[in-house]
Amino acid sequence: MTVNQPNNTMKLIAKSSAFAPATVANLGCGFDVLGLAVHTPGDVVEATLYDEIGPVTITDVTGDGGVLPREAHLNTASVAVMALCKSVDFRQAISLVIYKQMPLGSGMGSSAASAVAAIAAVNALLPVPLPKESLVTFVMEAEQIACGAAHADNVAPSLLGGIVLIRSYHPLDFIKLPVPADLAVCIVHPALEVRTETSRAILRKQIALGVAIEQWGNLAGFVSGLYTNDYDLLRRSLVDVVAEPVRSPLIPNFTGIKQSAMDAGALGCSISGSGPAVFAITKGLEYAHKAAAAMIQAFADINVVAQSFVGLVNNEGARVLKIERF
Amino acid sequence: MTVNQPNNTMKLIAKSSAFAPATVANLGCGFDVLGLAVHTPGDVVEATLYDEIGPVTITDVTGDGGVLPREAHLNTASVAVMALCKSVDFRQAISLVIYKQMPLGSGMGSSAASAVAAIAAVNALLPVPLPKESLVTFVMEAEQIACGAAHADNVAPSLLGGIVLIRSYHPLDFIKLPVPADLAVCIVHPALEVRTETSRAILRKQIALGVAIEQWGNLAGFVSGLYTNDYDLLRRSLVDVVAEPVRSPLIPNFTGIKQSAMDAGALGCSISGSGPAVFAITKGLEYAHKAAAAMIQAFADINVVAQSFVGLVNNEGARVLKIERF
Repeated sequence: MTVNQPNNTMKLIAKSSAFAPATVANLGCGFDVLGLAVHTPGDVVEATLYDEIGPVTITDVTGDGGVLPREAHLNTASVAVMALCKSVDFRQAISLVIYKQMPLGSGMGSSAASAVAAIAAVNALLPVPLPKESLVTFVMEAEQIACGAAHADNVAPSLLGGIVLIRSYHPLDFIKLPVPADLAVCIVHPALEVRTETSRAILRKQIALGVAIEQWGNLAGFVSGLYTNDYDLLRRSLVDVVAEPVRSPLIPNFTGIKQSAMDAGALGCSISGSGPAVFAITKGLEYAHKAAAAMIQAFADINVVAQSFVGLVNNEGARVLKIERF
Repeated sequence: MTVNQPNNTMKLIAKSSAFAPATVANLGCGFDVLGLAVHTPGDVVEATLYDEIGPVTITDVTGDGGVLPREAHLNTASVAVMALCKSVDFRQAISLVIYKQMPLGSGMGSSAASAVAAIAAVNALLPVPLPKESLVTFVMEAEQIACGAAHADNVAPSLLGGIVLIRSYHPLDFIKLPVPADLAVCIVHPALEVRTETSRAILRKQIALGVAIEQWGNLAGFVSGLYTNDYDLLRRSLVDVVAEPVRSPLIPNFTGIKQSAMDAGALGCSISGSGPAVFAITKGLEYAHKAAAAMIQAFADINVVAQSFVGLVNNEGARVLKIERF
């Protein structure tokens, strides 16, 4: 279905498309500050550039079951593009088609992926495309609209790939961390609904100092393990004592599901983003496949259907698929 | 003055001495988990081994103004040695002379330095000395007695040198982090008394989740900066939003003192351990000297005498000075 069709008389002068991957935010001990990009799933956005000054519009969205807003000022993808265009004073009309290829509300950074794909596609059409790092802030503005909070731990890894640390939000400061070559990840998405607002609201506003110390010791250890390819240190460090204990009751049989992944050889397992997806990291793809199968089975045991995504960490992030100029 | 003199008839068969450096624990964003070793000051302990089964005793302590316990079961140095000897079933009589060469109760890890020097000296006399890493746990037992809490963020860097992350206390897990070659440190010790218990008691038992997130983002950034020699990232990350805001009122004019160090080119400045010493890290020795002079002046401005210690980070830690066998 077509919405907000650009003026028929307008001539298109270029088209591009880009892919942006799903992401695991709140990566274990890295609550709110660490996110990781996967190879699949992800979203694709096609951008069309016209030869006249005009608005950013969304002409179509597929794969969302009709639930995403088609109004440009409400959709993360178009809001991100508008923020970019405004900053570089680019005023030509742009239309977007969003191909959703991943579940919404899954805890896998769905809204970030659409916005990142859109901004990557449009950036490629600019006279002087900006470096990827510069795009993070525009997508965060979009996330503010879509989620009510400007988190960067999905946006930054979806754009830049790999594992990204958001050191600070005020001012925004992110660091791409090194990724050991064999670091694999599986995400298992159960057919359950966990609302981000619920998952957010359930968190405690205050935490015990001792718990915080445990968390930051683990996060520092995890970062060290990434730099030294020390998988055993990654295993010891990927422990979330802050969010997981509070949020895991929202996921039925979480303890059993996690245990099944660990028994299958995972280095660590926790909730992806604000859930309900669950992720595990492993040394090598073989264990990622085994952990995924074990978690799928553990969900099946409680009559919950789940799908899994397995791959190495995606160290590239968003990528432009094609550019055509007419 | 001689206390607990070993039996005069006992024959000495070996002597050793070792140096252990002062340390900066609670290193900025690394509250309770990060400590750093300096070159000076530090303590020296001389150990004498006898040819008979017998106790660990302290024959003398110098430089402490008479305040440290001479009873072997109350002094961190002898308690650490006893823990080591028990673990390897070494029963020969040992006497210790402790040469205190650094201020007590300064926030510079004084008790840890004595205990580390003692255990390093005695370890060198064992038939099969243990690796340094194995000694940490024995000194922590001693710290438990001296401070009522078994912290490792002084002990581990004093033993191992460099900057050490205590990832976890249960189980004990520490990681020696890399140190950029030009990373210098100055410690300024004002003639003020801040009791460790007061400094500990003043801390909030609960902290806001947002504050904790800010702290662990900074700690992760600091660790990343150490691996990448990124001094600017170290500068951005060495910020303590947990302990410093609460403890700094215990140090008169702390804000002005810190500002003077930052104005002199420090990358960061905070409280060393639980104070009253204040430390700054810099890129290069020249800025460390400047920051030290600026802080000394800032203390002088409020009529507080202070002494400073300046050097590169000590990447070696405790070292055996001599071994003599008779």
